[in-house]
Amino acid sequence: MAIITLTTDFGLKDHFVGALKGSIYKELPDAKIVDISHGISPFNIQECAYILENSYKSFPDGTIHIIGVDSEPTQENQHIAVLLDGHYFITSNNGVIGLLTSEINPEKVVEINIPNPLHGSFPVMDVFIQVACHIARGGTLEVVGKAFDQLKDLTGFQPMVTDSGNKIIGSVIYIDNYGNVVTNIRKKFFDAYRKGRDFELNARTTKIKQIHNKYSDIINFSLEKEKRKGAGDLLALFNSSEYIELAIYKSDLNTVGGASSLLGLDYRDTITINFL
Amino acid sequence: MAIITLTTDFGLKDHFVGALKGSIYKELPDAKIVDISHGISPFNIQECAYILENSYKSFPDGTIHIIGVDSEPTQENQHIAVLLDGHYFITSNNGVIGLLTSEINPEKVVEINIPNPLHGSFPVMDVFIQVACHIARGGTLEVVGKAFDQLKDLTGFQPMVTDSGNKIIGSVIYIDNYGNVVTNIRKKFFDAYRKGRDFELNARTTKIKQIHNKYSDIINFSLEKEKRKGAGDLLALFNSSEYIELAIYKSDLNTVGGASSLLGLDYRDTITINFL
Amino acid sequence: MAIITLTTDFGLKDHFVGALKGSIYKELPDAKIVDISHGISPFNIQECAYILENSYKSFPDGTIHIIGVDSEPTQENQHIAVLLDGHYFITSNNGVIGLLTSEINPEKVVEINIPNPLHGSFPVMDVFIQVACHIARGGTLEVVGKAFDQLKDLTGFQPMVTDSGNKIIGSVIYIDNYGNVVTNIRKKFFDAYRKGRDFELNARTTKIKQIHNKYSDIINFSLEKEKRKGAGDLLALFNSSEYIELAIYKSDLNTVGGASSLLGLDYRDTITINFL
Repeated sequence: MAIITLTTDFGLKDHFVGALKGSIYKELPDAKIVDISHGISPFNIQECAYILENSYKSFPDGTIHIIGVDSEPTQENQHIAVLLDGHYFITSNNGVIGLLTSEINPEKVVEINIPNPLHGSFPVMDVFIQVACHIARGGTLEVVGKAFDQLKDLTGFQPMVTDSGNKIIGSVIYIDNYGNVVTNIRKKFFDAYRKGRDFELNARTTKIKQIHNKYSDIINFSLEKEKRKGAGDLLALFNSSEYIELAIYKSDLNTVGGASSLLGLDYRDTITINFL
Repeated sequence: MAIITLTTDFGLKDHFVGALKGSIYKELPDAKIVDISHGISPFNIQECAYILENSYKSFPDGTIHIIGVDSEPTQENQHIAVLLDGHYFITSNNGVIGLLTSEINPEKVVEINIPNPLHGSFPVMDVFIQVACHIARGGTLEVVGKAFDQLKDLTGFQPMVTDSGNKIIGSVIYIDNYGNVVTNIRKKFFDAYRKGRDFELNARTTKIKQIHNKYSDIINFSLEKEKRKGAGDLLALFNSSEYIELAIYKSDLNTVGGASSLLGLDYRDTITINFL
Repeated sequence: MAIITLTTDFGLKDHFVGALKGSIYKELPDAKIVDISHGISPFNIQECAYILENSYKSFPDGTIHIIGVDSEPTQENQHIAVLLDGHYFITSNNGVIGLLTSEINPEKVVEINIPNPLHGSFPVMDVFIQVACHIARGGTLEVVGKAFDQLKDLTGFQPMVTDSGNKIIGSVIYIDNYGNVVTNIRKKFFDAYRKGRDFELNARTTKIKQIHNKYSDIINFSLEKEKRKGAGDLLALFNSSEYIELAIYKSDLNTVGGASSLLGLDYRDTITINFL
């Protein structure tokens, strides 16, 4: 039995998530349901894409991912089902698939057209669950609807290279649970333009000249504890998703503070890298 | 094996929810446990009822719902187990069942009386889990305790009709994850008194003359994007639970704000509808 | 199949928890995964220990507990796997096991040394999951690594007795979902020094002379409702984990407030008890 995951902006207080799970179990008593996140900022497609991109691959092939963000269908926000990288995604055409497919082409995309759908304000319940259970029972996408070729493309979320390849202009795409700031600059992209040169990363008034691979890389264990860098110190690293991240070592938003507040950086703010 | 659901005000940080699940699995290794919500505002029975009412029916008949809100037993807050609409509810007599049964009579209500219960400050663990596992194993309510006929009745939560049927006085019963304001006025109730007339809904200084069925109903797709209503605009709709809800289209509490803050409406505030 | 639990400071918004679960299911399709908490304050080992201590025993023997708090390995924070009280714990040597073992000696402790581990910034994914799945499949700790005898010991978290046994100096170790204040003084410890005497508990300017066993113990049901103590009143009790707790009866942080804010008490603040 395939796994069904849920990624939504429903939060965990309201009845929505519980009701969805009840409905799935009613149709598929042996379903395995996994919450990826219900904490997406409302209607924030890029956050949703970042979270999905960094979690879906951990699941087995054939997993069915339900995306409950901006899912009310309109003539510009069609319901679609997608086979991508061996995984199924059920979503509205809100741009999230476009963000996931910057590097991978989807194998199949169909516009959902199921008989007698309810047309209310809770389409994840009324439509997506039915499609997910159909796929989980071994059904094909062809039965769900016709091929669709108008995937919405969200632009402006990729870093740019200017100044004859000497400068990368990126932006903040995510702020994590520790207040750490994730940029849209991937290691692969950075390395391709760096070509071994020194560089200076600028985030508002902060300048950084080194990017680490682990948080604890800033600690010099040959020094006595009092003389070391440690909790509260800033670093840049390639995070576990291979994006450049600005972090505070052992940050706690309630005590030493997070990189986001300390550097004054918010979602969509600009980060530049100058190669020297 | 029946599903056991949990609806509590325990939050998700503390050890309570994890400890409950461990205890259930210790007794029933094959149990299927589903969280409905652990985010009920502490001791808020009406919120608890709203969330349960809108989720329990999605689960299969025979599901066992544990309610961990105001569950410490006293002589005025007895532990009860209830069979209602094909579902089992294990709770204290805090009024939540009365709110759920405004339209449906419970099939059975017993006062829980199990041998050697612990009398501590965590009765959901000490008592409710035992009763839930008993029912999940096919046990009957008769074994759990004697018939009970003193269900607490919380009044004042139903809308009133005044002015010879020309006015409905309702109130706010829930504010959801998007800041949308749910009233206690159901579509069925509204339609019964409306009798096809025009109306004016008043929420503080705001007046609304139309109630939609979907959030996107306010968008006129024949207009250019810049001229349409959209994110940040107010509407009233019958929500997916069939209650009148005041919403901000694509609200985000961090950016455009939610209906609750924009209209200045809080839990228990009054909403009136005048039929013209 | 053993249960695998997760206790982390990852929060529930980010992709980390979803990614971990996907990885476990990829290796062990029939795994039973239970979230204990993902809301630990970042890097707060004592909170983590308090939550684990009060939940792990509810699970069946043989349960595997993954601890994702301060888990980046350094030469001073080794990865370890521990068999303790019939349960497995996979963690870094951050002090949490020391706090759990103040009363119980671990049966086995090994330093994790698995072939070809990834050395990134997400060791729970790269290392702990592999070890957990190995144990879940019946593997032994001996295969995971060599015996380890340098468990980090966090001191200063135990209450002290001074003044010839007439005074206990404790501190706040946890503030729960209701704002209730949990001290590090256990019932057993308190009773051992009290020897039946009267006492005065001091928390800043507040003095308390009685410790209850249930929240509702402060209510005198023989009085009319208006004359009783009730919602908003302060009490001390031995909580369900047998620690002395200062609580507000039916506290709601949004309305009557919690004990923490009302008494001005925060994590690590001092509580004293004088025996008279």
